[in-house]
Amino acid sequence: MKKRIVIALGGNALGNNLPEQMKAVRITAKAIVDLIEEGHEVVIAHGNGPQVGMIQNAMMELTRSDPEKYIPCPLSVCVAMSQGYIGYDLQNELREEMLDRGIDKGVATVLTQVEVDPEDPAFENPTKPIGSFMTKAEADQLVRDRDYQVIEDAGRGYRRVVASPRPQSIIEIDTIRSLVETNHVVIACGGGGIPVFKTNGHHLKGAAAVIDKDFAACKLAQQLDADVLIILTAVEKVAIHFGQPDAEWLDDLSGDMARKYIADGEFAPGSMLPKVEAALEFAESKEGRFSLITLLEKAKDGIAGKTGTRIHK
Amino acid sequence: MKKRIVIALGGNALGNNLPEQMKAVRITAKAIVDLIEEGHEVVIAHGNGPQVGMIQNAMMELTRSDPEKYIPCPLSVCVAMSQGYIGYDLQNELREEMLDRGIDKGVATVLTQVEVDPEDPAFENPTKPIGSFMTKAEADQLVRDRDYQVIEDAGRGYRRVVASPRPQSIIEIDTIRSLVETNHVVIACGGGGIPVFKTNGHHLKGAAAVIDKDFAACKLAQQLDADVLIILTAVEKVAIHFGQPDAEWLDDLSGDMARKYIADGEFAPGSMLPKVEAALEFAESKEGRFSLITLLEKAKDGIAGKTGTRIHK
Repeated sequence: MKKRIVIALGGNALGNNLPEQMKAVRITAKAIVDLIEEGHEVVIAHGNGPQVGMIQNAMMELTRSDPEKYIPCPLSVCVAMSQGYIGYDLQNELREEMLDRGIDKGVATVLTQVEVDPEDPAFENPTKPIGSFMTKAEADQLVRDRDYQVIEDAGRGYRRVVASPRPQSIIEIDTIRSLVETNHVVIACGGGGIPVFKTNGHHLKGAAAVIDKDFAACKLAQQLDADVLIILTAVEKVAIHFGQPDAEWLDDLSGDMARKYIADGEFAPGSMLPKVEAALEFAESKEGRFSLITLLEKAKDGIAGKTGTRIHK
Repeated sequence: MKKRIVIALGGNALGNNLPEQMKAVRITAKAIVDLIEEGHEVVIAHGNGPQVGMIQNAMMELTRSDPEKYIPCPLSVCVAMSQGYIGYDLQNELREEMLDRGIDKGVATVLTQVEVDPEDPAFENPTKPIGSFMTKAEADQLVRDRDYQVIEDAGRGYRRVVASPRPQSIIEIDTIRSLVETNHVVIACGGGGIPVFKTNGHHLKGAAAVIDKDFAACKLAQQLDADVLIILTAVEKVAIHFGQPDAEWLDDLSGDMARKYIADGEFAPGSMLPKVEAALEFAESKEGRFSLITLLEKAKDGIAGKTGTRIHK
């Protein structure tokens, strides 16, 4: 039963800085190659929260050091850089792990843009903090000169906030599909993808936004006609009454039950909720598809039906 | 006569900062799509001098701002980021220009590593300055803590210098070939590629080096079995007695003549010399191959045999 699998990797699979990343991707690669070794086709999407924050901070320090020469770097450009930063380490560990096991497959990082809708309501209420703290004067200047939106974070200073709109389509989907079909493991939609919207017909313009990597992976899985979407997280299974004495770990979650639990507020916004929503959207998008939410190191057992939470129609 | 063409784009095709880059790639894309429109398969390699310098400076400013948290970013990682930074703009302009002309092809940026030889003599004598100027104290610390090599630049401070070894092979060559064969314009080997060497058999380790983009393009063209290598530069043709009253512009340069002129010191090291050397290496690598050195906007006429300098066996 060879399947086409899209995996959404979270920040904990990548570490918070370069030394951590090099260590984390080694463990991540082993778990992913466990799936590849069983003959599955694997495409990997990943987050970039700490990484794009680091790059954004670095570019901001550069602007501070020489404001005449360097304008603030757009967020979409920072996401593009983060795809290179993360893809480089991740593809190398995957390559090495496959070579160690005698698996003859290519591995490729595809610079990926993801279209968002400029009318997405998320743009009206940006909530995602990005980059380091600023003084009021710095924040005011960016609001004035560059249309940034900022929030004050109680006593710690000002931070830029951006929108997190839903992904509409993957611009490089044909490239990713070509590579999957020519025996490649593909790393795509890094950081949820470089957010772009279409202007003047087909011209793409970077958006000041970040796309949730689980929703980007969900869109990628649909457009690739994948069989399974695996969303990796810090718990082995999804729970209801999470953190309470009567917590119940779920092996299995139907669409109807998922909707009920969502309505009951069982899943934390910004944490398990978007994962369950993305898993549900994929599972219901076509007959025969299912999603799996579990720990990185349980992905193989999860696909075999031994653990994790399976979300299905 | 449809050909497979590898193009080496220089810094002037990309601009020195983000606003310049966005403008420059528009012109670059038009010239490249002129070739694609004639039915040629096109793969693009590009330099990254100013861009990787900017990223290296930004990462250095980040380290300065918080040395506990951020170790200096390895040069290979900065090159990986620069591939994202440049590829994003370049692929979008190519995509848009093709859509404007009704050309149905994908365009993909492939994160590319290029193997170098740790025994390359270039490592014994690093000469390529990278990043911004430092104080003596900063330079001394990097020499002590991180094995950097530095030079003093008369009165202006200290700069890091790195080696520029020859490329041995393109790690992602199969990926690039797959994409060319599935109707893609491919951007690869950005900045000459992320320099890596093999340790412990097949493990890849980033090298503190930069690879000349013309030599990287030459290697890429050979490994892709291309028909033509186009090296774009700031002059329409190669000249002997360049800059002198008796300068002679060359339409045509055979291997034997090229070697003679090189021996005579006709071509400036670090400028036209590596271009002629790379062009010559490709032209002599297999029957039927040739190289072309010309201006970006003359590439189409050059392929048609109307201008530029054609280097052949």
